[in-house]
Amino acid sequence: MAFKTDIEIAREARKKPIQEIGGKLGIPTEALLPYGHDKAKIGQDFITSLADRPNGKLILVTAINPTPAGEGKTTTTVGLGDGLNRIGKKAAICIREASLGPNFGMKGGAAGGGHAQVVPMEDMNLHFTGDFHAITSAHNLLSAMIDNHIYWGNDLGIDERRVVWRRVMDMNDRALRDIVVSLGGVANGFPRQTGFDITVASEVMAILCLATDLADLERRLGDMIVAYRRDKSPVYARDLKADGAMTVLLKDAMQPNLVQTLENNPAFVHGGPFANIAHGCNSVIATKTALKLADYVVTEAGFGADLGAEKFMNIKCRKAGLAPDAVVIVATVRAMKMNGGVAKADLGAENVAAVQKGCANLGRHIENVKGFGVPVVVGINHFAGDTEAEIQAVKDYVAAQGSEAILCKHWAQGSAGIEDLARRVVALAEGGSSEFHTLYPDEMGLFQKIETIAKSIYRASEVIADKKVRDQLKEWEAQGYGTLPVCMAKTQYSFSTDPNLRGAPVGHTIPVREVRLSAGAGFVVAICGEIMTMPGLPKVPASETIRLNDAGLIEGLF
Amino acid sequence: MAFKTDIEIAREARKKPIQEIGGKLGIPTEALLPYGHDKAKIGQDFITSLADRPNGKLILVTAINPTPAGEGKTTTTVGLGDGLNRIGKKAAICIREASLGPNFGMKGGAAGGGHAQVVPMEDMNLHFTGDFHAITSAHNLLSAMIDNHIYWGNDLGIDERRVVWRRVMDMNDRALRDIVVSLGGVANGFPRQTGFDITVASEVMAILCLATDLADLERRLGDMIVAYRRDKSPVYARDLKADGAMTVLLKDAMQPNLVQTLENNPAFVHGGPFANIAHGCNSVIATKTALKLADYVVTEAGFGADLGAEKFMNIKCRKAGLAPDAVVIVATVRAMKMNGGVAKADLGAENVAAVQKGCANLGRHIENVKGFGVPVVVGINHFAGDTEAEIQAVKDYVAAQGSEAILCKHWAQGSAGIEDLARRVVALAEGGSSEFHTLYPDEMGLFQKIETIAKSIYRASEVIADKKVRDQLKEWEAQGYGTLPVCMAKTQYSFSTDPNLRGAPVGHTIPVREVRLSAGAGFVVAICGEIMTMPGLPKVPASETIRLNDAGLIEGLF
Repeated sequence: MAFKTDIEIAREARKKPIQEIGGKLGIPTEALLPYGHDKAKIGQDFITSLADRPNGKLILVTAINPTPAGEGKTTTTVGLGDGLNRIGKKAAICIREASLGPNFGMKGGAAGGGHAQVVPMEDMNLHFTGDFHAITSAHNLLSAMIDNHIYWGNDLGIDERRVVWRRVMDMNDRALRDIVVSLGGVANGFPRQTGFDITVASEVMAILCLATDLADLERRLGDMIVAYRRDKSPVYARDLKADGAMTVLLKDAMQPNLVQTLENNPAFVHGGPFANIAHGCNSVIATKTALKLADYVVTEAGFGADLGAEKFMNIKCRKAGLAPDAVVIVATVRAMKMNGGVAKADLGAENVAAVQKGCANLGRHIENVKGFGVPVVVGINHFAGDTEAEIQAVKDYVAAQGSEAILCKHWAQGSAGIEDLARRVVALAEGGSSEFHTLYPDEMGLFQKIETIAKSIYRASEVIADKKVRDQLKEWEAQGYGTLPVCMAKTQYSFSTDPNLRGAPVGHTIPVREVRLSAGAGFVVAICGEIMTMPGLPKVPASETIRLNDAGLIEGLF
Repeated sequence: MAFKTDIEIAREARKKPIQEIGGKLGIPTEALLPYGHDKAKIGQDFITSLADRPNGKLILVTAINPTPAGEGKTTTTVGLGDGLNRIGKKAAICIREASLGPNFGMKGGAAGGGHAQVVPMEDMNLHFTGDFHAITSAHNLLSAMIDNHIYWGNDLGIDERRVVWRRVMDMNDRALRDIVVSLGGVANGFPRQTGFDITVASEVMAILCLATDLADLERRLGDMIVAYRRDKSPVYARDLKADGAMTVLLKDAMQPNLVQTLENNPAFVHGGPFANIAHGCNSVIATKTALKLADYVVTEAGFGADLGAEKFMNIKCRKAGLAPDAVVIVATVRAMKMNGGVAKADLGAENVAAVQKGCANLGRHIENVKGFGVPVVVGINHFAGDTEAEIQAVKDYVAAQGSEAILCKHWAQGSAGIEDLARRVVALAEGGSSEFHTLYPDEMGLFQKIETIAKSIYRASEVIADKKVRDQLKEWEAQGYGTLPVCMAKTQYSFSTDPNLRGAPVGHTIPVREVRLSAGAGFVVAICGEIMTMPGLPKVPASETIRLNDAGLIEGLF
């Protein structure tokens, strides 16, 4: 039996006009700004008009630590949204936009998979509605204004050695990681060393995703620290008067994008901050808008629950005043096996013992999420090779933890395959058992916040950081940044900082190599390990085979 | 009496839904891909279906050499389109898209002026439909693939010192003109010196504007020379297998954009190549599509007729098989005065003698355009301070040249003010007197082509170029590029290479400092003087005052 590929299924989608999708949520046609026939932005005035409506239920989909076996977090998010609609709930999903650049490195793309996808898939993996290009422009306008300010006399007294604001591009281009600019003589300025990050790593991206409206966006943009003076006092974007023009460049990008699932249910796809140096969630404005329009909003967070759910709770929910009503943790039998020590090549063989062993990883995530006071259910994303005994092993393990694991076949069957999970989610959410709370209070010291996450979530025995890092955190506390949450930048593959350490390690050490202040986004980044903010292309990049075929269809992208 | 500003007038526009505008040209709703309610792209399938239709009449609007007094070429293009519609012709205009970056330097923007504008003006000066961002992405993907190829072993044998393909950004950022990339050690590649140009200077932009369809686009992208080997043999974008992926990134950008004038007439706004190192015209695909849909298509070319009209004829028309039926040369009394030696501060006072003296500039442009075998009419773009005697002086001068100058008040009155010019244009075009021919044949040598333009159009006595330049041209001829047209990069302010030399100079020398081969676009660029391909921001950039006001309107951009 030949399976259809994701792109083949996506191309067979019977898409409805986006106005009809918006209509399902009661969005009037004039409030939808169409981009083609199958994409639209939701107008700001309409969003403002929703303020007094009650909120629907918020469901977070998170996952175990990712393995090369694949978990299907987005697939499950999409499937659950369709499943909730199938059982009669007015549901919408909220996911992130894809970064264009990496698609030209490795074959990638897709938004979900199988019969649980969001379309139009091609557009979503290319320019989509231009949001990331707008972020690139806004970011680089500020960069240009910094060097321009220095060029024309440097009235603000910027220390050219301490410009922390780099440039960005939505492309995998390692040659731009570390560069010297302003060469060529007097007319081109003062040479200095700097570099480019990929656009999703921009603080502007994080801000767009956390801002509640355009005024909040502008205020946060102004708060960004771009450089320091010789006396180490910060220079803000506001000092350069860049915040207004950046807001103008971002005004359309701030409006959430509406598309649809293969089953013609509404999907908000908006924002895409890095899940390491940023918080890895779709935009607050999209989530809040969806909550006003739908009875159920299913959203996801980047990476596994140790990073994604933690940041969703401690950063996004804290800042936006959101509270999840239930959490789904996605697991697969294959990933459990890998966590249990099986190599990818050997995943095909039944191995109940390895599944049981690997469940420790899942178990810890369940415990961690429950620690936020939120009810949890596990969704087992079914793969064709899973055996009954393996599936039962996961169910038994989760039952022993006091939760339930439900087999989901949305990849193969769409919403029909995920009804059980949808019903369970409704029961949990309507049950009202959620008593959401963040992990730490605003008032806790910055280093203590890092320690709290490392010990409570990662189960590390200690956090180590040299004096420079600790002094920097104290300095920020003295400057009034002590109430910010921390954003952990750590490998997604393990609870520890060693990507090869699967399962549920304990007693490890979390080294904080560096800390960064995202004063506009409103968090302190703790970098634990190597974090790459500008990827490179592989030896044979996907771009070599991407092309339009004779039928006008894109080949090689997926 | 207080005049309204352009932006005030534009904001009062009673825009019609873009589907209604498309309907005027018989474009079915499903062939329009909307971007919001007032912008759309025209679908490729619909464009393909038009192939067998007859073409409408093509009218080129060009101008005298620009002066700080302002000429209003785009304003007249828009006004003439409205005027032709007013007198019962089905007319559309075709103009270029604006570059985003420069708007954050000097207050700029606008598409036309007064009551002859294209809307939505804000969008057109910001991200519009994302075409320029797509060009930026496609260009920089190729850049990344070049350095990535070298990084992984350089199988093509690229000489790292001879990489001619730079990077681009749609921003005024002088710090990026001259940079060193790939610093930071082994993981980041081989350090080399390079730089960024502004996006409109990209050869990809020129190609998008000259390509007839996606297949032609891909072929041209593949033909681009990105580097040379040690033996000086060229390395093409095709060798890096970048052409397919670049085409995918550009597939939406290739579709022409449709917007509307203040009088709700159709306006194609598509493409925006530099008018010095490129040919400075809107896209061939937009012009050709408009010609299939409208009885009259009014278009313009960058700068004065010496650069703009010359390239329109010798590059765009030659390559696309187009032939203008009539040409309008825009002049103003004020600009005639400046050409006659009056300083900008003194333009307010009547000065018939200066007008008469300055008309020499206009006269030469008339003569030049007639040299292409095309009938000419002069449009005097009326300013409030113009006196009867001054206007009459221009009319008399033009009459003595065997042409006619017609006073146009479209800025103040819209189409009602330009009926006379519209009627005259129709008479010329319907008269069938156009016997269009290019200035030189394909077979002429490259240096001879430069000489022909310099002597016939600029009235220079000689072209000087050192041996290196002449040898380079000969080498390209030997490689099969000898049949390409030449693209002159020269100051727009004078027939000569001295921007301060107004009027109609003779006997000057044209120095060719450098030649470049745009093998994909299909022309050889002859650089005569300083050409800046990455602008900088001024001391107080417009971006410092651009902001959204409390009503959500953009301030400071216009």
